[in-house]
Amino acid sequence: MTSGGEKSTGKTITAAVVVIGDEILSGRTKDQNIGVIADHLTAIGIQLREVRIVGDDETEIVEAVNSLRAAHNYVFTTGGIGPTHDDITADSIAAAFGVGIDIDERAVEQMRARYDEDKLTEARLRMARIPHGAELVYNSISMTPGFKLENVIVMAGVPAIMRVMLEAVTPQLERGDKMLSRTIRVMQPEGDVAPGLSAVQGEFDGVAMGSYPFFEKGTLGTNLVLRSTDPDQLEQALKALLARLQEDGLLDHVLLEDEA
Amino acid sequence: MTSGGEKSTGKTITAAVVVIGDEILSGRTKDQNIGVIADHLTAIGIQLREVRIVGDDETEIVEAVNSLRAAHNYVFTTGGIGPTHDDITADSIAAAFGVGIDIDERAVEQMRARYDEDKLTEARLRMARIPHGAELVYNSISMTPGFKLENVIVMAGVPAIMRVMLEAVTPQLERGDKMLSRTIRVMQPEGDVAPGLSAVQGEFDGVAMGSYPFFEKGTLGTNLVLRSTDPDQLEQALKALLARLQEDGLLDHVLLEDEA
Repeated sequence: MTSGGEKSTGKTITAAVVVIGDEILSGRTKDQNIGVIADHLTAIGIQLREVRIVGDDETEIVEAVNSLRAAHNYVFTTGGIGPTHDDITADSIAAAFGVGIDIDERAVEQMRARYDEDKLTEARLRMARIPHGAELVYNSISMTPGFKLENVIVMAGVPAIMRVMLEAVTPQLERGDKMLSRTIRVMQPEGDVAPGLSAVQGEFDGVAMGSYPFFEKGTLGTNLVLRSTDPDQLEQALKALLARLQEDGLLDHVLLEDEA
Repeated sequence: MTSGGEKSTGKTITAAVVVIGDEILSGRTKDQNIGVIADHLTAIGIQLREVRIVGDDETEIVEAVNSLRAAHNYVFTTGGIGPTHDDITADSIAAAFGVGIDIDERAVEQMRARYDEDKLTEARLRMARIPHGAELVYNSISMTPGFKLENVIVMAGVPAIMRVMLEAVTPQLERGDKMLSRTIRVMQPEGDVAPGLSAVQGEFDGVAMGSYPFFEKGTLGTNLVLRSTDPDQLEQALKALLARLQEDGLLDHVLLEDEA
């Protein structure tokens, strides 16, 4: 029984992300994709369980993808699918699966919507190299597709293009129960709210309770986050925690955030 | 011989980062530490080679830390060292090294600078649990230290506190040659600059050349990034690439960024 109006599937679907690119590791480029993918997966009922950032190195990509695709329902990669010599993601994915890779006529056809025939240079056609057996993932911005091979979804690193690819592949993804969350913001240091949180956690097995300190304008505060796929249990836990904070004399310092 | 005024050490020092926290994976909190650590390590001559984001789960933390500390000179962790039940980083690091963990009198002494004796509650003393054999990492903001055990540096997740801990541990870190970089910004799609870049890359073994597309105001452009620990080779490669771009009729579209 859920009160949130959504059917419970009873399923847990998990995912991992592999961010590919030396420029992220050097600090030159700041990743903007992890948070977007995390939010999106949480919203559609897929639990992101691990992220790895690796360099432009086939051995590292293959190792990360192979260990994560065995452990999760889906693996999403970002970056390294452009036209230059350092774009080795497609070849690395083919290597990870032990399949061949060639210029894919379906990909070239999509690219023709953007490029005149004389602009389909050798470098650009490199972007149409797709591992055998993969489905294309549509790119409505620059028309060079990503792809999905079994449970691995390969997307661009440019944030705007990553987003349209993530949207494009979403209808094909299996979804589990959504992880719901409620947050209590307490303007007190974590150490003062810890005992209450631990006590209430002990009463609710099906609700994960986390405490996240923050430091703003010289003051330490704490976000208490309750997470569960069961909306009824979540509300009960929220009430119990608020009661406990009142008991501990902390309710004056509380700001309840609506996140349901 | 270097022209940048810095002594070449001939050494390569590498590092990895483990970000610990369910809240990052759920998307609720957006990581602000990876980019800061990446920039800092690059600036002091340490090459960041891998990042993993894992949940608040001992098995996952132990696995990530043990595989990365064997492969790199340093592993930096962020998150999970607070006073609540879900803060399991210190215990997980002790488990990873197979050492004991107890309340550390040195840590309690530092905390006394902030907390009156009656505020050193059981929950707060939990934050003074430090694995045996670790050195403390000073926290000038909230006085609860991080620690360094062999080559693993354990820091807070709160960005302001992570930063002072990173500064505090920096004098103890061994440094290698700095990775220097120069960037050429071309207002043309990656596919048009790819052939020139690949050709020039072929002439310079000691300079890594990467191409990073961007999409701004409806236009695709490309950053060409040259990276090397040798400043002379870097300048030669930069000149060769600019000459090639001129040859390809792309120099009108170029903006040279000063990053030396």
